[in-house]
Amino acid sequence: MTMQDAHTPVSGSSSDNGGGERQIGWHKGYLTGSRPDIRVPVRRVHLTNGRDVTLYDTSGPYTDPQVETDVRRGLAPLRENWIIARGDTEEYPGRAPRPEDDGLKHTAPRGGLRNLDAVFPGRPRLPRRGRDGQAVTQLAYAKRGEITAEMEYVALREGVAPEVVREEIAAGRAVLPANVNHPEIEPMIIGKRFLVKVNANIGNSAVTSSIEEEVEKMTWATRWGADTVMDLSTGRNIHTTREWVLRNSPVPIGTVPLYQALEKVDGKAEELTWEIYKDTVIEQAEQGVDYMTVHAGVLLRYVPLTARRKTGIVSRGGSIMAAWCLAHHQENFLYTNFEELCEILRAYDITYSLGDGLRPGSIADANDEAQFAELKTLGELNRIAKSHDVQTMIEGPGHVPMHKIKENVDLQQEVCEEAPFYTLGPLTTDVAPAYDHITSGIGAAMIAWWGTAMLCYVTPKEHLGLPDRDDVKTGVITYKIAAHAADLAKGHPGAQEWDDALSDARFEFRWEDQFNLALDPDTARSFHDQTLPAEPAKTAHFCSMCGPKFCSMKISQDIRREHGASAEEVEAGMAEKSKEFAAAGNRVYLPLAD
Amino acid sequence: MTMQDAHTPVSGSSSDNGGGERQIGWHKGYLTGSRPDIRVPVRRVHLTNGRDVTLYDTSGPYTDPQVETDVRRGLAPLRENWIIARGDTEEYPGRAPRPEDDGLKHTAPRGGLRNLDAVFPGRPRLPRRGRDGQAVTQLAYAKRGEITAEMEYVALREGVAPEVVREEIAAGRAVLPANVNHPEIEPMIIGKRFLVKVNANIGNSAVTSSIEEEVEKMTWATRWGADTVMDLSTGRNIHTTREWVLRNSPVPIGTVPLYQALEKVDGKAEELTWEIYKDTVIEQAEQGVDYMTVHAGVLLRYVPLTARRKTGIVSRGGSIMAAWCLAHHQENFLYTNFEELCEILRAYDITYSLGDGLRPGSIADANDEAQFAELKTLGELNRIAKSHDVQTMIEGPGHVPMHKIKENVDLQQEVCEEAPFYTLGPLTTDVAPAYDHITSGIGAAMIAWWGTAMLCYVTPKEHLGLPDRDDVKTGVITYKIAAHAADLAKGHPGAQEWDDALSDARFEFRWEDQFNLALDPDTARSFHDQTLPAEPAKTAHFCSMCGPKFCSMKISQDIRREHGASAEEVEAGMAEKSKEFAAAGNRVYLPLAD
Repeated sequence: MTMQDAHTPVSGSSSDNGGGERQIGWHKGYLTGSRPDIRVPVRRVHLTNGRDVTLYDTSGPYTDPQVETDVRRGLAPLRENWIIARGDTEEYPGRAPRPEDDGLKHTAPRGGLRNLDAVFPGRPRLPRRGRDGQAVTQLAYAKRGEITAEMEYVALREGVAPEVVREEIAAGRAVLPANVNHPEIEPMIIGKRFLVKVNANIGNSAVTSSIEEEVEKMTWATRWGADTVMDLSTGRNIHTTREWVLRNSPVPIGTVPLYQALEKVDGKAEELTWEIYKDTVIEQAEQGVDYMTVHAGVLLRYVPLTARRKTGIVSRGGSIMAAWCLAHHQENFLYTNFEELCEILRAYDITYSLGDGLRPGSIADANDEAQFAELKTLGELNRIAKSHDVQTMIEGPGHVPMHKIKENVDLQQEVCEEAPFYTLGPLTTDVAPAYDHITSGIGAAMIAWWGTAMLCYVTPKEHLGLPDRDDVKTGVITYKIAAHAADLAKGHPGAQEWDDALSDARFEFRWEDQFNLALDPDTARSFHDQTLPAEPAKTAHFCSMCGPKFCSMKISQDIRREHGASAEEVEAGMAEKSKEFAAAGNRVYLPLAD
Repeated sequence: MTMQDAHTPVSGSSSDNGGGERQIGWHKGYLTGSRPDIRVPVRRVHLTNGRDVTLYDTSGPYTDPQVETDVRRGLAPLRENWIIARGDTEEYPGRAPRPEDDGLKHTAPRGGLRNLDAVFPGRPRLPRRGRDGQAVTQLAYAKRGEITAEMEYVALREGVAPEVVREEIAAGRAVLPANVNHPEIEPMIIGKRFLVKVNANIGNSAVTSSIEEEVEKMTWATRWGADTVMDLSTGRNIHTTREWVLRNSPVPIGTVPLYQALEKVDGKAEELTWEIYKDTVIEQAEQGVDYMTVHAGVLLRYVPLTARRKTGIVSRGGSIMAAWCLAHHQENFLYTNFEELCEILRAYDITYSLGDGLRPGSIADANDEAQFAELKTLGELNRIAKSHDVQTMIEGPGHVPMHKIKENVDLQQEVCEEAPFYTLGPLTTDVAPAYDHITSGIGAAMIAWWGTAMLCYVTPKEHLGLPDRDDVKTGVITYKIAAHAADLAKGHPGAQEWDDALSDARFEFRWEDQFNLALDPDTARSFHDQTLPAEPAKTAHFCSMCGPKFCSMKISQDIRREHGASAEEVEAGMAEKSKEFAAAGNRVYLPLAD
């Protein structure tokens, strides 16, 4: 078995784009499943020692030189034929777009909003939904014992048998977010038996940023490894921004429909109604949103539990629903209408991401009564959603000191019947604003090791401002580290092959291989070049930390070379070898050219 | 009890420099002990709500505007009177400096080496050592029941009773590194009952960097929170660089004497002798090095255990001693002469940092036979060192996946009788060169939670190049986060007060207080200003993430304000309050000016 095979066990054949001469570096490749239209993208790293390493790839068609992409046309609808072939959906005219979808109800357009450039030009399709409201969800198929093309796709991608994927989805332990109106995605799976996933948040806000920036942030985030992207836009142009993001996204897109619903009532929480919310959900369902955060667990009776907290309610959705509950002194309309919402979501295969509106916003508030009361309600809602065949994951905190993290996963897994946990960090201390990717990366790695299936990234700007391009990259890379560290700790098959390949390259001074295998080859290479810029340094048998004379790896290699690979041989022949070593001039450091 | 008192319980009085009007921001303050010359520096943060928060301060006199510092004169010898007053040390002429101390044996001086600028000008003192070779160590005093000025100092600094400090040192569970020839330091303690400490490595190498850069890196590292600094210089000017660093360092300085000894034999490991090594130790002892890494656990019979490793031996000291052992086929001379070395170290109160020369250099090699065999030998050496009254800590890895970290601490604590553990990270994955501050920050936080007393930082340049000023800062801040996250998880008294103060400031939109309380106020402020640069934004009751309409903390405050602070009251009066809320115009968002 080659390293490539070991890293991503595949049941199908594999083919590379490009062909021709083997070039050192990395390029896009594909694993092909049982039929030609199941082609799973991978990142192939060609090493200087003749080996290849195959890595998971989230970057979409943008990194395939053979695919021409055009953000104004959108990506090809990869899944369209699969969806149509199942014969259980139908096209329909859909909801007519309204000015308030883009926040234009009470404000005059200005600065070219909704001009021809802003409206997405490339949408020919009608929306689609389950015929007669039937469940067209991966959960419904899995329960019936069907292995869909999407399931086969993710099985190939994860290196497991398709039946494992089906089983995990059927049991509600994994979700495969894939709205029938988002055929552009490359299917992926979220569940504790699979690789830990990372979500990146993007979204304009009332204060700053534009459509173009958000689309670019999405492709940039997936370029560095984001498995899903949430569009949390809150300003104007919400509908239009989302359309551009969806049509160009190779990964599932999540939203919080409540944000847009609130825009439609001019930010007055008490004016929200189930009807406005439901209409917003349908609007987004028809666009193709793959999963939705729903704060249905913020119950009226839980709100007072937050009164004595240090930082009250820090979830936007949670605070909006809390304000609504108090204003009306009525139960949360998302909770009271939850079954009707299930009926909508199942007709599009939208996955629930049950929001933790009462998550702690500080170390002091972690694991408190409000948080865990809501979690138990999310467990109740999870059972209801499953009974309607709606895929469901559960959101988690937030801010939690290390010693209180495990209790979060354990309780969630218990009360939510092992539904995938999707946590925001958690931050393990509050004292380092500007470094919350790190305070939370620590907690994220730990909570993922203990069973969290997807991590929502945190950028350096958390608590301070909106992330720019660099922040998005830093956040994604930090969280890929946390996710991969967890994959290693969980003993995920194949995870360690990547580390081993990089460690081998390091020990053998194959600098180019080290860079190409790195999570961020660009930065690794540039850091190396800052100290030793010359080209020969990239093949030198030492590095800038120790210089040529003190290099420990160099000495280790000499030891190995002098003593052979077998520990037994070394032990047996040590006295003899010691003499040879002296006879050979006691060369601790071999010439650089060797 | 005010927050200030709660954070740093003090047995003495406290006084601030500066006096006069109270200014928002932070400045240097001091806690005074039982006598006026015990003055422990602290960082006082003056909040806009009239409160003060007192934080641990490692930055030395450089941040005290009332102290004039001059790097050519060095810092004031804070501990000199304490050392003299004990009457157990004597001055002596000391070892004469030799050209080879600076690596000039076989090479002609060039480029102004050892000119008047390079040689440290401000050293009037003779070296000092224990009279008649007696132990002048904090361990010896502690065992005799004496509470030294240094112990009282660290007790005040840590907010514990002096007797706790004495007990922990006497039991070998903590060390207080303080060479009698380094009177400039502000004493600090390393042990699991105390705050987790952070070490920053500096040092020029054969490839690059200069004396000035290294001194500046030292003050820069302590400015951001480094508790100790290791000078790992390996190029020329080793002696001179160390002199400048020691004379200007407010924190204990550690070294690896083997590096300099190897320079003296032109990098030929097989030419090393006990005599050359011993001479180097005395040279460094007289300069004032506070703790020394000694690779005495790399035994001849362990070397073959590394032959089948993925990355062999990655410790420089470990590989040098392994090469020596193999070349001579003799036992490690540091091991065979260990008791004599103890006699030297105890005469200066140099603390052992028993090096883990066989630590794993990759995920694949973690917790293997070679590593744990050496650890058991370190346990044996720890007992010998203690019997000679030499303070001792134990170095640990390295590269360890998350699920194998705890075993490291548990085994070390067992075989080393709870001697302080001092680990390098560990890195939890190998796939992210350029981000190894993060891959290792994750492991560092966890291992510190489980009992590691001091963390050796890793910078973004690890494996790639030499850290510059920015890398040093990033490494220190990342490790202060890990250390503080561990303090929180261990329930260290007072640790959470800092988080609480920052969380309060966040919830109450006291932006300036958030910045001033942050581990890195400069970056926090600049990140905020990138999105909302105007001055009013720093008092705004919302932030750039959500904008003014959606702010969850704002809504939370309204809920609290509407419903009072008591959960019982809220529950009881909720129906009534709901009416009032409506009557007040259903204001979810209060005016910004309120």
